[in-house]
Amino acid sequence: MRACVSPDIDLNRVLAGDRVAVSRAISIVENDASGARLLLEGLFPKTGRAYRVGITGPPGAGKSTITSRLARYYRTQGKTVGILAVDPTSPFTGGALLGDRVRMGDVELDAGVFIRSMASRGSLGGLSRKATEAADILDAAGKDIILLATVGVGQSELDIARAADTTVVVLVPESGDSIQAMKAGLMEIADFFVLNKADRAGADQAVTGIQMILGFRAAGAWNPAVLKAVASAGEGIVEVAREVEAHRQYLEKSGTLHQRRRLRLEDRIAGLVEDAVREQLWNAESRGLLQARAEEALVGRVTPYAAAGELVNLFRRDHRS
Amino acid sequence: MRACVSPDIDLNRVLAGDRVAVSRAISIVENDASGARLLLEGLFPKTGRAYRVGITGPPGAGKSTITSRLARYYRTQGKTVGILAVDPTSPFTGGALLGDRVRMGDVELDAGVFIRSMASRGSLGGLSRKATEAADILDAAGKDIILLATVGVGQSELDIARAADTTVVVLVPESGDSIQAMKAGLMEIADFFVLNKADRAGADQAVTGIQMILGFRAAGAWNPAVLKAVASAGEGIVEVAREVEAHRQYLEKSGTLHQRRRLRLEDRIAGLVEDAVREQLWNAESRGLLQARAEEALVGRVTPYAAAGELVNLFRRDHRS
Repeated sequence: MRACVSPDIDLNRVLAGDRVAVSRAISIVENDASGARLLLEGLFPKTGRAYRVGITGPPGAGKSTITSRLARYYRTQGKTVGILAVDPTSPFTGGALLGDRVRMGDVELDAGVFIRSMASRGSLGGLSRKATEAADILDAAGKDIILLATVGVGQSELDIARAADTTVVVLVPESGDSIQAMKAGLMEIADFFVLNKADRAGADQAVTGIQMILGFRAAGAWNPAVLKAVASAGEGIVEVAREVEAHRQYLEKSGTLHQRRRLRLEDRIAGLVEDAVREQLWNAESRGLLQARAEEALVGRVTPYAAAGELVNLFRRDHRS
Repeated sequence: MRACVSPDIDLNRVLAGDRVAVSRAISIVENDASGARLLLEGLFPKTGRAYRVGITGPPGAGKSTITSRLARYYRTQGKTVGILAVDPTSPFTGGALLGDRVRMGDVELDAGVFIRSMASRGSLGGLSRKATEAADILDAAGKDIILLATVGVGQSELDIARAADTTVVVLVPESGDSIQAMKAGLMEIADFFVLNKADRAGADQAVTGIQMILGFRAAGAWNPAVLKAVASAGEGIVEVAREVEAHRQYLEKSGTLHQRRRLRLEDRIAGLVEDAVREQLWNAESRGLLQARAEEALVGRVTPYAAAGELVNLFRRDHRS
């Protein structure tokens, strides 16, 4: 393994947790810059020690506050923390387009906490993949806990769940109306729930509502709890950290952590394979044929399906040579 | 061409605009049911006559109201209308998970209007592709105008813009704060803006705000207008329809309509090719190797990148035989 994968990146400095090197490494991954693959390949053998916690929920639930409070708590336990604030930029929800950095309060000043916002306007799965790769960098750089928090809304909930070992879903009493609606999607991703802003009216009813929905669930070995918190006042944060730990122990003892991480690696390898094959697919010849056939389809001389079949055959022929 | 692509679908009934046949055809496409491709291939030569209008904007902007009012207006002009309410289901934003049908008022009772909700939890681009395919069905079935409206939020704005000839972005005075933030994303997709609920305070300032942002744009042949409307009272709807027509004429005269539709077909054919190649990629042998290598990557014996390279080589070998 070469220690230096590009003129700008010294792998050993990343592994030593150097902030500038780590930050630059994440930028390389985020921008798909040349050297990203070599960098990740070099770091990969040093990953697997950090625990990855996903924090997601609807807008306004207080995800950033919970994340910064959790980070602060982990610091009091002597653990180093990496925070990735993941933003599925939508033109309407703003997000990273606002130009705002995520505000995490005093943890930003702590040398033991590394905070980074990541945005993606790319393809689905792109966010999950880049979050995973950035988490790999923080993992290799020696962070004990990596908090992957969603900013904004969209399909990022699923992306976060795909990249995390434990996924925490943050709700507020006002979420009550839509909890039933959330059922299908949330039950798939939530390892446990935090009802934040629990000092507001309707908190107990909201907790009962979530528990009732959970009750309809097929009995499993792990039963997602519903915790209450007032993150802005620091209330309930220790309990959240304890529940993360309890879930981690459950995953480890049951072998589920191994299984989750293996499936994550399968997805990741499959994605790399598909990217590589897609790249081989489009060259000057196939692009030219694609343009010609689209022109013909526009005037009804060929269907998109027949044109696609022809291109697939071209690809097979090229690979046969 | 066979007139009957499956025991359930008579192509000629779809082409004749039979509601039940059209509805069933869209279901087949939506569910990727067998026969979907044959159906679409059969209908494709009959497409290209309908004009496709995308209607998008943030939650609460009144997209459904504008859509139904526009449909009603087009009916008074003797045109038939198809409405596709496209929903990017997110567990937090609810959408189709709420089980609600989109409510469009009295146009629902008009035999000249076909309304359909479509949801997608699949991959990005899946929604755009299915909306395009459903629009093809409505196009072949003889609808003059197809309104593609987003429900909910997420990445669907872009999907809608990809599927439409003209894209209308609906905002409200309250959107003002985030208009600047929307700049990057919206300028790419908006052919013109409608400031709905223009009887509310701040409407004129919001219009000015949008115009100012538009002013920073490089001068082009088409300058997106900012119209005011109060859709719930039917105000400004005729002007929206006229602006759609003006944009259509601009696109036709400049050759841009041809170009937009050709690029859309290129995307579509490329997507079909990539799907077909991906399908060939994963068989019992490659899946087995993927699982084995993921297991090894988990214990650090191989990197995901090396494993992916091996699988790509396996694929090349298979194609060579």
